[in-house]
Amino acid sequence: MKKVRVGLIGIGAQGGAYAAFLTGKPGFGGIIAEKPEHMELGALCDIDSEVEKKCAKEFPEVAFYGDYKEMIESGKIDAIITTVPHYLHTEMAIYALSKGIHVLGEKPAGVYTKQVKEMNDYADTKPDLVFGIMFNQRTNKLYQKIKEIVDSKELGEIRRTNWIINSWWRPQTYYDQSSWRATWGGEGGGVLVNQAPHQLDLWQWICGMPKKVYANVKYGSHRDIGVENDVTAVVDYGNCATGTFVTCTHDPIGTDRFEIDFDNGKIVVEDSKKATIYRLTKSEKEMNETMSMMDVAMLVQGRGEGKLFDEEVIENTDGWGVQHVTVMEDFAKAIVHGTPLLAPGSEGIKGVELANAILLSGWLGKEVEIPVDQELYLDELNKRIEEEGKFPTRG
Amino acid sequence: MKKVRVGLIGIGAQGGAYAAFLTGKPGFGGIIAEKPEHMELGALCDIDSEVEKKCAKEFPEVAFYGDYKEMIESGKIDAIITTVPHYLHTEMAIYALSKGIHVLGEKPAGVYTKQVKEMNDYADTKPDLVFGIMFNQRTNKLYQKIKEIVDSKELGEIRRTNWIINSWWRPQTYYDQSSWRATWGGEGGGVLVNQAPHQLDLWQWICGMPKKVYANVKYGSHRDIGVENDVTAVVDYGNCATGTFVTCTHDPIGTDRFEIDFDNGKIVVEDSKKATIYRLTKSEKEMNETMSMMDVAMLVQGRGEGKLFDEEVIENTDGWGVQHVTVMEDFAKAIVHGTPLLAPGSEGIKGVELANAILLSGWLGKEVEIPVDQELYLDELNKRIEEEGKFPTRG
Repeated sequence: MKKVRVGLIGIGAQGGAYAAFLTGKPGFGGIIAEKPEHMELGALCDIDSEVEKKCAKEFPEVAFYGDYKEMIESGKIDAIITTVPHYLHTEMAIYALSKGIHVLGEKPAGVYTKQVKEMNDYADTKPDLVFGIMFNQRTNKLYQKIKEIVDSKELGEIRRTNWIINSWWRPQTYYDQSSWRATWGGEGGGVLVNQAPHQLDLWQWICGMPKKVYANVKYGSHRDIGVENDVTAVVDYGNCATGTFVTCTHDPIGTDRFEIDFDNGKIVVEDSKKATIYRLTKSEKEMNETMSMMDVAMLVQGRGEGKLFDEEVIENTDGWGVQHVTVMEDFAKAIVHGTPLLAPGSEGIKGVELANAILLSGWLGKEVEIPVDQELYLDELNKRIEEEGKFPTRG
Repeated sequence: MKKVRVGLIGIGAQGGAYAAFLTGKPGFGGIIAEKPEHMELGALCDIDSEVEKKCAKEFPEVAFYGDYKEMIESGKIDAIITTVPHYLHTEMAIYALSKGIHVLGEKPAGVYTKQVKEMNDYADTKPDLVFGIMFNQRTNKLYQKIKEIVDSKELGEIRRTNWIINSWWRPQTYYDQSSWRATWGGEGGGVLVNQAPHQLDLWQWICGMPKKVYANVKYGSHRDIGVENDVTAVVDYGNCATGTFVTCTHDPIGTDRFEIDFDNGKIVVEDSKKATIYRLTKSEKEMNETMSMMDVAMLVQGRGEGKLFDEEVIENTDGWGVQHVTVMEDFAKAIVHGTPLLAPGSEGIKGVELANAILLSGWLGKEVEIPVDQELYLDELNKRIEEEGKFPTRG
């Protein structure tokens, strides 16, 4: 196989953009990124007949299916990408894998860990198939560099993490564009399942999973929706290290500031574009044992001998689209050449676990442990689906 | 009265600096700030005979007392400043007021709200005496300007507050310098009662008191002490607004970043020196009703017509010392001219209430309400004093 023929399921804003990336045609969104070298568009699938008409016009040479199972069994594709409501990610992935088709799932991996675990367990039985997830922000060189620094222990252990990620502004018209959006039954949540999964993944990818989570969660904050769109979480990593994660969809100025404090330095990432890495000249432990407050104050003020830390600034300006194509190409190369994935599908469960822990803590009004009690989470979610009364409960 | 004759109680690092400010002599710390116009040094008091010798050498013309009550009744002073272990602030204030002496207390007002309330109630019975507190950071023009903006509702209501105040690095030698320091029985706590009271006060002064507090508190984090020196708190203001407060004493790089999100803008203060005020061109409510994600993205990228917000930067570089003298002068003028205080003593209870709520939440492992149950707090504090076994419990 030279090129992986991919079938896109769900040709909305995101799926349309992917079709554009893969064909070099503007597509629905009008956004063009460079084509991935080892992937081509094999087929399109959507249940909406209006979408079918649009696709016939935009991509007349590409086969279209109204039923994803039919597409999977058509022989026209080697892999699927699932840009569909989040609840469907797992069942589509399992079906495709069962038919020998590779899967690149959209984020989040699913809505609740129980369903994601079923998917992961099934994927484990298919070691010859490639199962990836669209964590496009993992391709950001800044975050790759930071993960490298953390993993190498160059700066020692993490003492604290703080991420304020409020750059997910969404107006009411966004929420009103489809009936499933921003509902418990249709989408499975709000900012934690739709916007922030990228940061939840990067946060755990870089800093590891916490042991405990407490969260203050607001539902429909400054918006007419029933799900969460304003979250303040505190986590405990179990080794004296702590963290906070703050996100909302009603801040148009949009702070995105990620700070990690280490034994021997600090990293501050601003707007996912600029990272400042501070490396202490002496470790904090050594400073504690050998320096006075006055010694440190002198260094801070530029007096005294030597300096407190070295500073390195790194920048990355990869735009939206480039990141997605990079994940597609990474996935395709894993199929064609057997190279390891940047974002293995099985890792998607970690961000889902974090989102579940945050919501469960908010619902129960107390700190919860990780791993989350998956049955309890599903029960609590189903209570909210029932109260909402728009969609069936989940099993 | 042209000049208020002040008696300093406790001539350690802080009291010695104040003596220097008031006399224009370098004093113990070697730090000189401009003298307050309406205040002069009337007497000095300390229980340590070594300190008495030092004072005799540095300030031979100033009366020295080993007993604060004797100084208060000496006729040589009109007011006191209490740079003493925090537990003593309230009893000294009450004694001075009972003898017709004005009081400028050091921060924190006390260790637990029960004792502070007793002091405030007593001060209320002495309306002719001036009762202030050394919240020197209230003199920072940045914070005054921000308080003005908040109070005027120019930017609407507050939606979120975030303060990371880690610039309180303290080495082990600092903690080891006296037996009462960083103990439950002698000092009453750690970073929340010694270093962060300034920010706890500014935070509530500017943003108001929250209704609920949850905190993850670490005791002796990277230091050999029994009290808290690493705190992560989440607060709820009861109107959909939330906040976080993060502080520790083991970060030598020392982040100090205070962000307030409003209906119509945002304020970010960095290092207590620079504030950026973002004023949205349209209110967020109006944006939500009239703008799409694409409209906003265009403005952010500098495309489209108009702009998302105006930006104003204000800076303040008042050094340490100047702020303290400004509070002294403000206090003296209140006595001499009857002008209102920038930092009334009765307001000290609010920061103590916040510190108590944070510790109580940490001890109980759950969210607590404000006002804090003052008897419960004292019981829990006394448990820790007993376990520590160094000082008597408090009543």
